[in-house]
Amino acid sequence: MPRVSQDHLEARRRQILDGARACFARHGYEGATVRRLEEATGLSRGAIFHHFRDKESLFLALAEDDALRMAEVVAEQGLVQVMRDLLAGRREDGPDEDGRGEHPADWLGTRLEVSRRLRTDPDFRARWAERSEQLTKATQDRLRRQREAGNLRDDVPVEVLSDFLELVLEGLVSHLAMGLPADDLGPVLDLVEETVRRHRRSS
Amino acid sequence: MPRVSQDHLEARRRQILDGARACFARHGYEGATVRRLEEATGLSRGAIFHHFRDKESLFLALAEDDALRMAEVVAEQGLVQVMRDLLAGRREDGPDEDGRGEHPADWLGTRLEVSRRLRTDPDFRARWAERSEQLTKATQDRLRRQREAGNLRDDVPVEVLSDFLELVLEGLVSHLAMGLPADDLGPVLDLVEETVRRHRRSS
Repeated sequence: MPRVSQDHLEARRRQILDGARACFARHGYEGATVRRLEEATGLSRGAIFHHFRDKESLFLALAEDDALRMAEVVAEQGLVQVMRDLLAGRREDGPDEDGRGEHPADWLGTRLEVSRRLRTDPDFRARWAERSEQLTKATQDRLRRQREAGNLRDDVPVEVLSDFLELVLEGLVSHLAMGLPADDLGPVLDLVEETVRRHRRSS
Repeated sequence: MPRVSQDHLEARRRQILDGARACFARHGYEGATVRRLEEATGLSRGAIFHHFRDKESLFLALAEDDALRMAEVVAEQGLVQVMRDLLAGRREDGPDEDGRGEHPADWLGTRLEVSRRLRTDPDFRARWAERSEQLTKATQDRLRRQREAGNLRDDVPVEVLSDFLELVLEGLVSHLAMGLPADDLGPVLDLVEETVRRHRRSS
């Protein structure tokens, strides 16, 4: 396949994913009708379903795409930074400064839909299992590098620290989803970050 | 009102709440039909709705009752112990050893229903707000007593430690609700507990 065509396909795929992300975030999975997906992406249903077999495949591709991007941020800046982004992004509008063309609040929307469907849809749970491992792997890789650099506490296994961070992330997602007050959570994330860092103890 | 009558009313009310708790945990709010509530409580709909105006009032009374009991455990043993109970109780059957007549897994069921309705029902969110403060208050009171006893770290405000513990609890509830593996979370709760305890530092 010639390069220009490949680029075109990828750009079109990206256009669909970005529009669908905002659409799912706003309306939820069931509420994201084909008509709303057309409006959000600016493309016809024919064009959309040329790239994705059905709405389920589109949502899974989107969730996987978001998990990959989240894993990239984790690899560079850590899971605590992902949580800070979620917290900072929940009231803003418009695209990110770095021009990724999406917004942390949209990640939250996708993540919430994933959480909801994990609770209610056993088939989805099975399909999602392997995809969710990417985030765990990125988190653990980052923690191992931090440990090698001497920034991480060394009295707790990396797997426990990783489970801890993911549990707090789940709590934060749930908290924001329930619309509970979140203005005071910055110091909580400081505490979470400090918990995984290297401690200097007298004993 | 004579004492015997008051005791009878309270016992009947308790019978309804205990049956309804198991029924909501198994079927969810919508799935807990009046017929199922009759079966679960062993009482007629007339008797049930003599004590509670409607299903919504019954659920709110139940959620409030659970929050109060959770607050009692928090006051005596701390929020981390509530999380350990949730973790330990998720696969067992039958009543608790201490004969409270209910089971941590049933608490989880009620708590999940509360979480779900907080996300989807703004009216419920408003009605729930004041009730949820009981848990925060019990947690903060316990932390203050622990601080006075010298068991708590003193470099982080009690409010931040309380928010931290509640965020982890939300993550745990969400994690269990999604049916994700939880066998390895014991060491994570150890880490959470250690995080709020007094640290001995060199500096």
